[in-house]
Amino acid sequence: MAPNAGRVLLAYSGGLDTSCILAWLIEQGYEVYAFMADVGQEEDFAAAEKKALKVGAKKFFLADLRREFVTELIYPAVQANCIYENVYLLGTSLARPVIARGMIAIADKEGCECVSSLIFISLLGSGAQLPSALSHHFVSHGCTGKGNDQVRFELAFYGLKPDIKVIAPWRIPEFYNRFPGRQALLAYAAEQNIPVTQTTSKPWSTDENLFHISYEAGILEDPNTTPPADMWKLITAPEQAPEKPERISIEFKAGLPVKVNVPDDNKSYQDGVEIFLALNALGRKHGIGRIDIVENRFIGVKSRGCYESPGATILRAAHVDLEGLTLDRNVRALRDQFVTIEFSKILYNGHFFTPEREFITSSIPASQRTVNGLVRLKLYKGNVVIEGRESSEGLYDEQQSSMDELGGFEPTDTSGFIQIESIRIKKWAQANIRKGQAGVEPKDVYGTRV
Amino acid sequence: MAPNAGRVLLAYSGGLDTSCILAWLIEQGYEVYAFMADVGQEEDFAAAEKKALKVGAKKFFLADLRREFVTELIYPAVQANCIYENVYLLGTSLARPVIARGMIAIADKEGCECVSSLIFISLLGSGAQLPSALSHHFVSHGCTGKGNDQVRFELAFYGLKPDIKVIAPWRIPEFYNRFPGRQALLAYAAEQNIPVTQTTSKPWSTDENLFHISYEAGILEDPNTTPPADMWKLITAPEQAPEKPERISIEFKAGLPVKVNVPDDNKSYQDGVEIFLALNALGRKHGIGRIDIVENRFIGVKSRGCYESPGATILRAAHVDLEGLTLDRNVRALRDQFVTIEFSKILYNGHFFTPEREFITSSIPASQRTVNGLVRLKLYKGNVVIEGRESSEGLYDEQQSSMDELGGFEPTDTSGFIQIESIRIKKWAQANIRKGQAGVEPKDVYGTRV
Amino acid sequence: MAPNAGRVLLAYSGGLDTSCILAWLIEQGYEVYAFMADVGQEEDFAAAEKKALKVGAKKFFLADLRREFVTELIYPAVQANCIYENVYLLGTSLARPVIARGMIAIADKEGCECVSSLIFISLLGSGAQLPSALSHHFVSHGCTGKGNDQVRFELAFYGLKPDIKVIAPWRIPEFYNRFPGRQALLAYAAEQNIPVTQTTSKPWSTDENLFHISYEAGILEDPNTTPPADMWKLITAPEQAPEKPERISIEFKAGLPVKVNVPDDNKSYQDGVEIFLALNALGRKHGIGRIDIVENRFIGVKSRGCYESPGATILRAAHVDLEGLTLDRNVRALRDQFVTIEFSKILYNGHFFTPEREFITSSIPASQRTVNGLVRLKLYKGNVVIEGRESSEGLYDEQQSSMDELGGFEPTDTSGFIQIESIRIKKWAQANIRKGQAGVEPKDVYGTRV
Amino acid sequence: MAPNAGRVLLAYSGGLDTSCILAWLIEQGYEVYAFMADVGQEEDFAAAEKKALKVGAKKFFLADLRREFVTELIYPAVQANCIYENVYLLGTSLARPVIARGMIAIADKEGCECVSSLIFISLLGSGAQLPSALSHHFVSHGCTGKGNDQVRFELAFYGLKPDIKVIAPWRIPEFYNRFPGRQALLAYAAEQNIPVTQTTSKPWSTDENLFHISYEAGILEDPNTTPPADMWKLITAPEQAPEKPERISIEFKAGLPVKVNVPDDNKSYQDGVEIFLALNALGRKHGIGRIDIVENRFIGVKSRGCYESPGATILRAAHVDLEGLTLDRNVRALRDQFVTIEFSKILYNGHFFTPEREFITSSIPASQRTVNGLVRLKLYKGNVVIEGRESSEGLYDEQQSSMDELGGFEPTDTSGFIQIESIRIKKWAQANIRKGQAGVEPKDVYGTRV
Repeated sequence: MAPNAGRVLLAYSGGLDTSCILAWLIEQGYEVYAFMADVGQEEDFAAAEKKALKVGAKKFFLADLRREFVTELIYPAVQANCIYENVYLLGTSLARPVIARGMIAIADKEGCECVSSLIFISLLGSGAQLPSALSHHFVSHGCTGKGNDQVRFELAFYGLKPDIKVIAPWRIPEFYNRFPGRQALLAYAAEQNIPVTQTTSKPWSTDENLFHISYEAGILEDPNTTPPADMWKLITAPEQAPEKPERISIEFKAGLPVKVNVPDDNKSYQDGVEIFLALNALGRKHGIGRIDIVENRFIGVKSRGCYESPGATILRAAHVDLEGLTLDRNVRALRDQFVTIEFSKILYNGHFFTPEREFITSSIPASQRTVNGLVRLKLYKGNVVIEGRESSEGLYDEQQSSMDELGGFEPTDTSGFIQIESIRIKKWAQANIRKGQAGVEPKDVYGTRV
Repeated sequence: MAPNAGRVLLAYSGGLDTSCILAWLIEQGYEVYAFMADVGQEEDFAAAEKKALKVGAKKFFLADLRREFVTELIYPAVQANCIYENVYLLGTSLARPVIARGMIAIADKEGCECVSSLIFISLLGSGAQLPSALSHHFVSHGCTGKGNDQVRFELAFYGLKPDIKVIAPWRIPEFYNRFPGRQALLAYAAEQNIPVTQTTSKPWSTDENLFHISYEAGILEDPNTTPPADMWKLITAPEQAPEKPERISIEFKAGLPVKVNVPDDNKSYQDGVEIFLALNALGRKHGIGRIDIVENRFIGVKSRGCYESPGATILRAAHVDLEGLTLDRNVRALRDQFVTIEFSKILYNGHFFTPEREFITSSIPASQRTVNGLVRLKLYKGNVVIEGRESSEGLYDEQQSSMDELGGFEPTDTSGFIQIESIRIKKWAQANIRKGQAGVEPKDVYGTRV
Repeated sequence: MAPNAGRVLLAYSGGLDTSCILAWLIEQGYEVYAFMADVGQEEDFAAAEKKALKVGAKKFFLADLRREFVTELIYPAVQANCIYENVYLLGTSLARPVIARGMIAIADKEGCECVSSLIFISLLGSGAQLPSALSHHFVSHGCTGKGNDQVRFELAFYGLKPDIKVIAPWRIPEFYNRFPGRQALLAYAAEQNIPVTQTTSKPWSTDENLFHISYEAGILEDPNTTPPADMWKLITAPEQAPEKPERISIEFKAGLPVKVNVPDDNKSYQDGVEIFLALNALGRKHGIGRIDIVENRFIGVKSRGCYESPGATILRAAHVDLEGLTLDRNVRALRDQFVTIEFSKILYNGHFFTPEREFITSSIPASQRTVNGLVRLKLYKGNVVIEGRESSEGLYDEQQSSMDELGGFEPTDTSGFIQIESIRIKKWAQANIRKGQAGVEPKDVYGTRV
Repeated sequence: MAPNAGRVLLAYSGGLDTSCILAWLIEQGYEVYAFMADVGQEEDFAAAEKKALKVGAKKFFLADLRREFVTELIYPAVQANCIYENVYLLGTSLARPVIARGMIAIADKEGCECVSSLIFISLLGSGAQLPSALSHHFVSHGCTGKGNDQVRFELAFYGLKPDIKVIAPWRIPEFYNRFPGRQALLAYAAEQNIPVTQTTSKPWSTDENLFHISYEAGILEDPNTTPPADMWKLITAPEQAPEKPERISIEFKAGLPVKVNVPDDNKSYQDGVEIFLALNALGRKHGIGRIDIVENRFIGVKSRGCYESPGATILRAAHVDLEGLTLDRNVRALRDQFVTIEFSKILYNGHFFTPEREFITSSIPASQRTVNGLVRLKLYKGNVVIEGRESSEGLYDEQQSSMDELGGFEPTDTSGFIQIESIRIKKWAQANIRKGQAGVEPKDVYGTRV
């Protein structure tokens, strides 16, 4: 038995890997407390607790972080229309800050000097397994030091508690050399009396929370492999979704959803978490929110990922639409170019507990002050169709907008506007003409015409 | 008869309005040449020519601009993923520069000192009519000086030929006061012997070209009115689209589509224009490319528009996806933040023939050098589903990306990376702790929590 | 006598032009109240009041706006390091919002339906005159509708009180055709018994407030004319400034100056306005803050301007320097790219009372939370030399920064950082090599080598 | 003797450190070729060559990179107005790519599998020495793995030759543990018969090239220490600079300096390198180009640096000024926000041989097409005063710009422009009034008022 190396709070999943790590940490002389976060994933927390204590954890903590996940992370991202590389809604990234904060809160209170985050938290807990085809070498999310989540967790830990010690076994040669593959882990589990219950496996790994589920690695690493139909876990395939469209409406206050009406069910939802869960159920039913992309990880490696984000996809479509009706043009343009893009990058790269995140999000409220109103949607086989929207904000003015009415508008003003707008352009055209560079053909400019 | 006021090239549509303007311009002493642009809209050009000459035009010109529209405008916009306010693919904006250039080319050659652009070009030509319900006041696209297209056309004219004179009757008090509504136009048409053939009308106006069709004004001015099913002209409703998905693939070179394979039809297309038309046909068949938004016009008025852009929607999805596989992360991020957003704004605001457009587009080739490869797509009831992609560019490296293989990657490097990345963050956290500002809860920062 | 056309609040300067306008407005049937703003310019307010009442104003208002000018406009601009086109510190732009707000406050209270802003407020009041050389045609700042300030004032009026009516005589044909030049104004003044006291004139116009003085028009319109030495009014020429450098220090809290120490005078200043005035005096003495540029006006015309901004130049140098010590790198980079540039553009274009200004400035506090500390400066013949800075913020860590000490820093971490940073770059280089595009010489890329 | 480990190209400086490394590499079994780059620093290359060969280098290479440094790195940075964190002109960053390329060219040709860059190239070669006060621990630029230049060099190596092996002794525990300080190096030098000639030392380190000299480390690590007068090596102190101002002019073509006229010397310069050297001489004489800042290194550590960039400071001032006269407003704004900021960051972080650099610089030519003309300058005791500028580009139009002439400009157009510009603003103000949120005081928005 090694000497007392300190107390460590281990992000525990109940799976083979974190159970082995738990045992290994004890072997290294640590007192281990096990931690699980409930961020809405499907998980048998009770079984995991039992197992953790059996393997040797001194204490077990289950933190229900669903509400803060929705209200503090998801909703600001909705307000800012966050999206990474045009397609990915950032479901995994959004969960990391609340999990890290949950761990640090307990580490603080319980006097743990170290945390051990293993990115296994929801991975194996959500059912993913070592693909048998790959079992000759070691397979697990992040174990090769290439993933985003190790970076996200650890930067969050340091941003909250800069003197925390982080133990990342998969990047410690003593650990990864000792356990070069699944067989070594199984042998160790047998030796340590760790129950191994998972027998089936899928040839990809997943991460699940109430925002989304992700699929990556394994057979998905060939970007030209179409994901098998049975991979998709949450969302009904559009082909199997109901033939009958369903109408709902979402009401927003300051860019946040405050009410969802589902007439077909004769229900409406007003609680933040319930709204999100209701939209999830609707999206899953109607085949909404699947994507398949090649994205660029923070460490600079390209990676293929598939995601299912049902409720978030509906919510984003509605929010973007309502902004058309209620948000000033220039605020929207500046927000799109700066806040949306920068906040998305911050989230993706795990820079949540940083001064730049504080800076960027400080401008969200001013951008959402007028985003109040209701959007009517039709859901149908993968489509989110906007059918109408209304608001009492008054920035849209039917009469002023009308092509058919003057409405106090002087057509000659537009002539003045065009004349002023053209001053600079005419000057430039005259200079070009004088220099014989007039009439520049676009094809001369682009250079890569077909 | 007024004295000879000069020669004017009139953008003619064959409809009531431009026919009346033609007559009115002659009445003002102008010699009028009529101009029509073929940008792929459905139009009876022969009938329009006959009518123009009958009403008094001295010459008639039909410019077939379809190829340059596709290769010089549409494809660069595809390369740059152009989109306005997250949703609108800019179909009308993209046609304006080629039409304006076509007119200026003829005005130059034919010695016209003036052009008269009326935004009626494809509007009435494509069948839109004055809604009878609104016939008591004057209804026509742009007549109230509120539209985008007058600005786009006129800035393009000035950017190409700064000394051109633009006659915009709907902003000339002498004209709009004389013709306060449809009845006045009809009376004038009768008086001038102008044949009036259009008898039906739709309660909205449209603009059509081979990229898209737009619908606005009339009943659409209430943003909460769901467009009637029979408004949508191009695209089959997803509900009526085929039950069977269809697979196609698109091959890109330097970000441009160079081949479309349609196995179900046993066909492939390689010509730039044919590729676009084939994608249009596919999108129309499968219910792809309808949107309905409230957008912000250049003059600062909010406006509701519905659009159908079938081929462009498919092409954009494929291009964005291939960039994931083939475009460097940092180039993509910079291009998204600057080129995509700024070029879209330039197009929307009609600033095509300007130094800033030349500046912005000059960076497109460098961004697309590596965007080579093939994307496989499934089209199904409004959905464009990416099923796979491949490229020989080599920026994606299956082994390096793999979570399951070390592939020459040292996990300890990531530890170093994280340590260096955390230097700044730890320093900031330490300063916060020292000042008692640590553990700032997000809710304190956002300010608008539910 | 015309019928009662309403009550107008006239921005009055005491000069010939606004006196004539005052008389002319009365002639048009308006009841005129005269308004002057004290924004720190040199002005004989008492004489102006007397004259306004003599010419026929029913009431006279003098608003002392100096404190709000400094604390609400200048200091936020300092916090954001505002600068237009790399050089201009925005002195005129900064004064416009407070003046416009001062006018609207009185218009509201006094029941004026109209305001008449003439950009003469400080122009002629500060001594500028119609250059005799140009007296055959009409000369005055803004009279030709080309200036920035008309736009700034009017957009501010509308942003504060959207139903206000603005009377801009110099853009009203009835007015400018009646008064085509100085002689016509003088004749009218004689006819109306308006005393004309200004007899000398300078061949440029000026605008002065406590932030700066500007010079433009007249002989300065040739951009290659060196301004005559006697033009510069505020600041001693560097050649004539003291031979002995002077040391001062400035203390900041949250990016705002809270104390200026001037040891040579044995004085220190803590009041917001006094700090600014003290820095002005120091800058004027030491030849600091003159610039001469060609700038781009909002309406798209290029224009030459000379400016003297003594205190602001010192303050900006100190603030920028302190941010080096106290502001996080990423916050700084984002702030520079977005807030500094966008807020400067907003100010220049007169978009202060807009949603985008509210949005942009909402992020300033979060960017300045840590900008606390003291900067030591040497002032000498036009130079502001930073001699040192200190802060207790703790983001600078001498030991960590040291090249000479390890300080808990593992050199091998940097190896890991470099390896991870190079992943993407190596991949790209390998792809280039494979395609035979390696070793791209910069000269092939830039295209414009010497 | 160790076995043959391969051939390494060592960046050699002639100083103690690289001489010891040379010997140590031989000891490790490497065949060592020594490399020196001439980028304009003061250096005794012949003595260094002699010493390298004496210590055991098999070959010695001296690459004269001055011309490509000026034309391929410095001038594009001038065209783009590059500057880091508002103050630093990037002199060290600009030299790194050409040095790295020079090394890789020789490594390629000479079959070296490795390069060893030590950031000592010009550091100790330019006279810097280990401060005796610090001699108890190891002192040298970069040795602690904290500097920017190791990152810049190594990323450049990998970007040019992705399979190169980089040996960085100061980050290799075997090396840095063996040589924990100057005494250990001296002992090793004695043992290896390495001549040690440098006996004096300065308490800071420097890097010099023809663009600038930098000072950092040692006593400068206290950011509140004023640099001693005798530290500054290149530039005359403003206090000691000539009492008489000197006038020069610089002519630009496409944003590049093509002629410098120095009337006082009756000389003019047209060659790219000579122009830069002439401006350097002028700046040094007149006290122009010293700065002292705290900057943020790429690895996230704040660092204090002092720099002298005489010629570059003059050139930048002239170029920025000429752009006022010749560059379109919108191009300038976009270029400032994107190219200037991003290219500066790319240079600072050593990302020169990357796709993003290629992307960003590809837009420089389009931005500089019109930047043609001449700027007249006065140089005086640290000041670069613009005295005038001229160009035949024609974007500045004296008559159009004139406040005193109508020049074809309709004042009523401006009324139309303002009305259109105010549409959006009025709408917003009306909405605020309706909601009782009108007249928002800036103080409510900023939140950090004094």
